[in-house]
Amino acid sequence: MKIGSVWYQGATRLAVAVGEHHAAIVGGPHSGCPSDIYEVIAQWPGIAQRLADALTDAPVEPVAALHWLPPVPRPGKIVCVALNNSANKERIMSGPDHPATFIKPASSLIGHNQPVRLRPGYGRVHPEPELAVVIGRRATDVDRKDALDYVFGYTVINDLTAPEMRGEDTFHYRAIHPAKDDPTAINYVDSWVSYPGRYKGADTFGPIGPWIATADDIPDPHDLVVRCLHKGQLVTEDNTANLTYKVADVIAFVSSYQMLEPGDVIAMGTALKKAGTAGQAVQNVDLTKLGGPIEVSISGIGTLSNTVEYR
Amino acid sequence: MKIGSVWYQGATRLAVAVGEHHAAIVGGPHSGCPSDIYEVIAQWPGIAQRLADALTDAPVEPVAALHWLPPVPRPGKIVCVALNNSANKERIMSGPDHPATFIKPASSLIGHNQPVRLRPGYGRVHPEPELAVVIGRRATDVDRKDALDYVFGYTVINDLTAPEMRGEDTFHYRAIHPAKDDPTAINYVDSWVSYPGRYKGADTFGPIGPWIATADDIPDPHDLVVRCLHKGQLVTEDNTANLTYKVADVIAFVSSYQMLEPGDVIAMGTALKKAGTAGQAVQNVDLTKLGGPIEVSISGIGTLSNTVEYR
Repeated sequence: MKIGSVWYQGATRLAVAVGEHHAAIVGGPHSGCPSDIYEVIAQWPGIAQRLADALTDAPVEPVAALHWLPPVPRPGKIVCVALNNSANKERIMSGPDHPATFIKPASSLIGHNQPVRLRPGYGRVHPEPELAVVIGRRATDVDRKDALDYVFGYTVINDLTAPEMRGEDTFHYRAIHPAKDDPTAINYVDSWVSYPGRYKGADTFGPIGPWIATADDIPDPHDLVVRCLHKGQLVTEDNTANLTYKVADVIAFVSSYQMLEPGDVIAMGTALKKAGTAGQAVQNVDLTKLGGPIEVSISGIGTLSNTVEYR
Repeated sequence: MKIGSVWYQGATRLAVAVGEHHAAIVGGPHSGCPSDIYEVIAQWPGIAQRLADALTDAPVEPVAALHWLPPVPRPGKIVCVALNNSANKERIMSGPDHPATFIKPASSLIGHNQPVRLRPGYGRVHPEPELAVVIGRRATDVDRKDALDYVFGYTVINDLTAPEMRGEDTFHYRAIHPAKDDPTAINYVDSWVSYPGRYKGADTFGPIGPWIATADDIPDPHDLVVRCLHKGQLVTEDNTANLTYKVADVIAFVSSYQMLEPGDVIAMGTALKKAGTAGQAVQNVDLTKLGGPIEVSISGIGTLSNTVEYR
């Protein structure tokens, strides 16, 4: 089942995909169905039949006509995995041997068809097409072999990135460390540190959706084709098979230090151009200069498209 | 007024400070008062009198006996300002000329007196004593001169940091940039990037509280003494006058790219040892090795203390 969140007749409702181009609106008073994705996640899979039954009487609208919200409108956190593609390996001189993550704020999310809003001070802004995982139940210290049991479903995220802001928000500095010989004294260590609050977390930098394909719809999350199109032209085409750390690896690792909660989102890392295919790198698609629409599609899930405004 | 959130007789309630060592429990059914800090923020300052009236009949408990939650139990985001102390300037070879930020997840927060839980893989973990701002109303593109109008109040945060995890989660890599001469081609640029999801965002890495001092209680947020004590011994003593970017600067800058919402928290950056005072650097206090308790106090707000568990 594919379930999104929409703003419909003045309220938040669930939208369940009916084919590729239509969605049925369910939820609200007297409907017998929740209108909140958190309730669906909490009652899944028991609630699936009730949702399916509700479709018979539900109004059906064209996907293009709906006001889409992020499918999880206010996730507790969005955990983003950095540089998680086997194609990155040759570019990394040194780095961790586990997933490295940062947090994108819920306030940066926008739904399908909502405009990305860019500003003069942002410099270049490029798309990063990614598979996103929506967590179904509380996860702490999860074993890799059980990790997929904690997945409610999968959606599409465009992890917009402003590399010039990244450069600005990088410090070259002398970090204070305790001295090796005397832990009460200090040493200075030449270090680099960068902070993603702005270059990854600005408003509208998190297009996500249109909906969540529940896990039972996706037999193998590592056999999905990820495409990014700019103004209808293919920019990148990749497969989730090329993610360095798989969904189960990431859930197991993150849950070893950070509790994952229902509705939390994990952005799995940028899909890159497959060797031999046509198209540019995502870094060539400067949305600030070139505008939109920018589109990310993942096979078996759906297509997320957003216009771009500059002001 | 000083208002916190507690778990009391099986439910979340508000706790209003009565002197330094006691708090009155308000809120709940038939009390005429909300038990949710978000409702207080939404109705502030109109609700202040109702809260004050409720104190007459409210049960009063010792601060030490209460189960403290983070005063805002689930903020939409926690914006943390990096390297924001005038004492850092001499250590920075290059960096931005504006506040640089990262996001700490709400799941990392714990209340006053709750245990910090450290694990073998974390390496060193040190305290970072900071003033925290709680946002009172939605803020976008706020002028510096109006910025303090958006503050609901102030609290204390200990922005725990694991510098060895920071080192692990730093990449030295060749970043892809568009070529200068041909924006459809790419260049590789030697770069450093670090990701704070783990070293700043692990569970229990965000002790906060015990309560929020409402803005009317704090005539000048840049005249507050910040002290950090480890096992009762003074580690650092600083004053919020030494913050490079002031509260109004940070609200104005952040709101220019990221909407601040009621209940959002801004951690203003680490207080450092004042020249000439006794004590070590916070980096010498390795809680993994030395254990707790670790305490941060800010004049006019209160004292946040946490034990440390290692497993």
